[in-house]
Amino acid sequence: MRIPISDVTPECGRAEIAGWVHEVRDLGGLTFLLIRDRTGIIQVTIVKKKAPAEVLEAVKAVSRESVVRVAGTVKAIDKAPGGRELNPETFAIVSVAESPLPLDVVEKVPADLDTRLDARFLDVRKPRVAAVFKVRSTVTSATYDFLSQRGFFNIATPKVVAAATEGGTELFPIAYFEKEAFLNQSPQLYKQMMMAAGFEKVFEVGPIFRAEEHNTVRHLNEATSIDVEVSFADHNDVMVLLEDLVRHLYAAVDERCSDAIADLGVEFEVPKTPFPRLPYAEAIEIAAARIDEPIAYGDDLGTVSEKAIGEEMGEHYFITDWPTEIKPYYAMPYEDDPAICKAFDMMHPRMELSSGAQRVHQHDLLVEQIAAKGLNPDGFEFYLKPFRYGMPPHAGWGMGMERLIMTMLGLQNIREAVLFPRDRHRVVP
Amino acid sequence: MRIPISDVTPECGRAEIAGWVHEVRDLGGLTFLLIRDRTGIIQVTIVKKKAPAEVLEAVKAVSRESVVRVAGTVKAIDKAPGGRELNPETFAIVSVAESPLPLDVVEKVPADLDTRLDARFLDVRKPRVAAVFKVRSTVTSATYDFLSQRGFFNIATPKVVAAATEGGTELFPIAYFEKEAFLNQSPQLYKQMMMAAGFEKVFEVGPIFRAEEHNTVRHLNEATSIDVEVSFADHNDVMVLLEDLVRHLYAAVDERCSDAIADLGVEFEVPKTPFPRLPYAEAIEIAAARIDEPIAYGDDLGTVSEKAIGEEMGEHYFITDWPTEIKPYYAMPYEDDPAICKAFDMMHPRMELSSGAQRVHQHDLLVEQIAAKGLNPDGFEFYLKPFRYGMPPHAGWGMGMERLIMTMLGLQNIREAVLFPRDRHRVVP
Repeated sequence: MRIPISDVTPECGRAEIAGWVHEVRDLGGLTFLLIRDRTGIIQVTIVKKKAPAEVLEAVKAVSRESVVRVAGTVKAIDKAPGGRELNPETFAIVSVAESPLPLDVVEKVPADLDTRLDARFLDVRKPRVAAVFKVRSTVTSATYDFLSQRGFFNIATPKVVAAATEGGTELFPIAYFEKEAFLNQSPQLYKQMMMAAGFEKVFEVGPIFRAEEHNTVRHLNEATSIDVEVSFADHNDVMVLLEDLVRHLYAAVDERCSDAIADLGVEFEVPKTPFPRLPYAEAIEIAAARIDEPIAYGDDLGTVSEKAIGEEMGEHYFITDWPTEIKPYYAMPYEDDPAICKAFDMMHPRMELSSGAQRVHQHDLLVEQIAAKGLNPDGFEFYLKPFRYGMPPHAGWGMGMERLIMTMLGLQNIREAVLFPRDRHRVVP
Repeated sequence: MRIPISDVTPECGRAEIAGWVHEVRDLGGLTFLLIRDRTGIIQVTIVKKKAPAEVLEAVKAVSRESVVRVAGTVKAIDKAPGGRELNPETFAIVSVAESPLPLDVVEKVPADLDTRLDARFLDVRKPRVAAVFKVRSTVTSATYDFLSQRGFFNIATPKVVAAATEGGTELFPIAYFEKEAFLNQSPQLYKQMMMAAGFEKVFEVGPIFRAEEHNTVRHLNEATSIDVEVSFADHNDVMVLLEDLVRHLYAAVDERCSDAIADLGVEFEVPKTPFPRLPYAEAIEIAAARIDEPIAYGDDLGTVSEKAIGEEMGEHYFITDWPTEIKPYYAMPYEDDPAICKAFDMMHPRMELSSGAQRVHQHDLLVEQIAAKGLNPDGFEFYLKPFRYGMPPHAGWGMGMERLIMTMLGLQNIREAVLFPRDRHRVVP
């Protein structure tokens, strides 16, 4: 019976493992192999004078990154990884790796990102790269845990849709039988409809698709979004929920992924809540004082401004009270000052992680705001109809999974947070 | 502070609730309203002589399915739902519902499925319909729990892909910038690549897309798939995993969704494991003996055959040892009889719920099997490459979420297990 390499200790006496040949060192009378599985690395030591002939033959033939199955006795030894080594009685090559490898798994030769992504199956064998996806898996599971325990239902909304969330731009068209359809940019309209449906607290973790033409280190054309919507709640309620979730996710990673964090060599600190709230008007003043470009109230915040504000604010803060004009039609204007709305962005010094708002729940105001954006309300009838039959007040947000992972782990390029990224030029593998 | 209706008891003394007006009965001196939120229903009783004038006015004006907020004193009363009623001191209409409603929420008037789906936000307000999605949410969360606890990583694989999993049919094409791309039919090839990546145990719960032309009660064009892949495992190992998961999911629903099960009025029993294993050759004999159509070894099993075999086998069983010729190229043939392969289907008497297999992990055999299906291996290079650099033996399966929910709850049409179904004719809402 094969056991995980991390479970192999001198106390085992005998053990059988299976994994990938990480390194081979032939010192003449002795051969050392490092064998890797997803739990760790073990040294396999072959003393040529003592080892069975079949073992010697297999070890001689084996190439790096081949899959092998090894059984033998475990011995405590100080100098080996994990303080133990395996002396094989049997050594079987399960699956041969061709040489040379298209990518160096031990990272002696650095590779550029495109080469890495072309051979992603080899790239993620590197413990430092696999660590990112262990963290991402933990973050996803912990999101389900946290929201389920707070009474949220998870929902699955359609990815094939007939209408754009925010107008006709940035959509990928699909040939859907005789009809025109698109890949959904966001579950926004659908999660709002579930508020009319009386579900009250919903979340979804799923793919979103944006046909953005720019190719940057912070954008993907296919991404994963964590979406939340809550009835009888306002923007302040869902900001608290969001900061609680972010703190919980960091804490879950801190607790369950210490090995991955060590492999990544990052400084990791669970953020403290509450995160600061910075009104948009003040954010603009900070930016104006710090950057050379002209910036004025009413402007959107570009990369340079975000960076400047981030330098002053530190990690994780909210920008609140945005001008109604520069936020989507579904953001609720303040009753006493409709030029400002109950929208917020959650920022990391490096970028925006999440956008949210209390939503407009009044049908006529919503129609007005859709028209004010230059969109035709007729195209939104499927979405507007629920607002005429008992739509409760509600609020929510969407958070980009990859940006969360990227900022959490200090990754330089958002593509490093995706197994098989999709961008302007890449749909393979 | 609003509390959930299910938490309102006579011991509360005073309570504030918010929800939808489920029914209004005016008996002259008395008006009874039933108010519904996602946790339950409460009777609100207004004695006209005693109630404040503002309350009387609001109650007179309110329409069914409007959203209201009510505060008052709670009294024990035998005849009311939950043994208590609320006597309002304040009664505010939060959001008005137009009359007439496009759909009757109390189900006095039955509606056909198309009408229900057109007004899905009203349809799912029915406790019996909402119950389906409470169960589905529980099943999804419990899948994450179960697989995470067994050491599985969840992964997110791309939905926009350049190649078809099983050849060029049944694909939705996307206009992806200058490139040709498709919506993915299945994470099959990607989860197998993650085996080459050394992740060993992965799962994904996500959307799949099939451009099937037929419009039946068992098919969707966008569905949710639970996908699992395990390294160093064979078909028998992953059949045990699958039956354990199914039993666990039924048990989770049994434990956490008793209200929903009661609303649905279904008989619910947690299936016993192990599920029977029925070799394909025997399945064909059962079908041949029971149905009028001619059927012979080598034929695929149609609806009529599946039903006939199901009558003999009962709920949940595996059909194993399929002819290699009628299973996909990635199914592993038996070493001693390559005409039969290590593929299985998990059946419910009504339909196939899951397909799986030990996979071919040998590069050259895989190329041979792809060619044998009349496909060109050159189109699969991104997938084949990992098989040349240390691919471990592996096995896995995919299970349709909607079919699982449909059979679990005795639903007649698979569309009832989806909030916003996508079929041959429907992309709205």
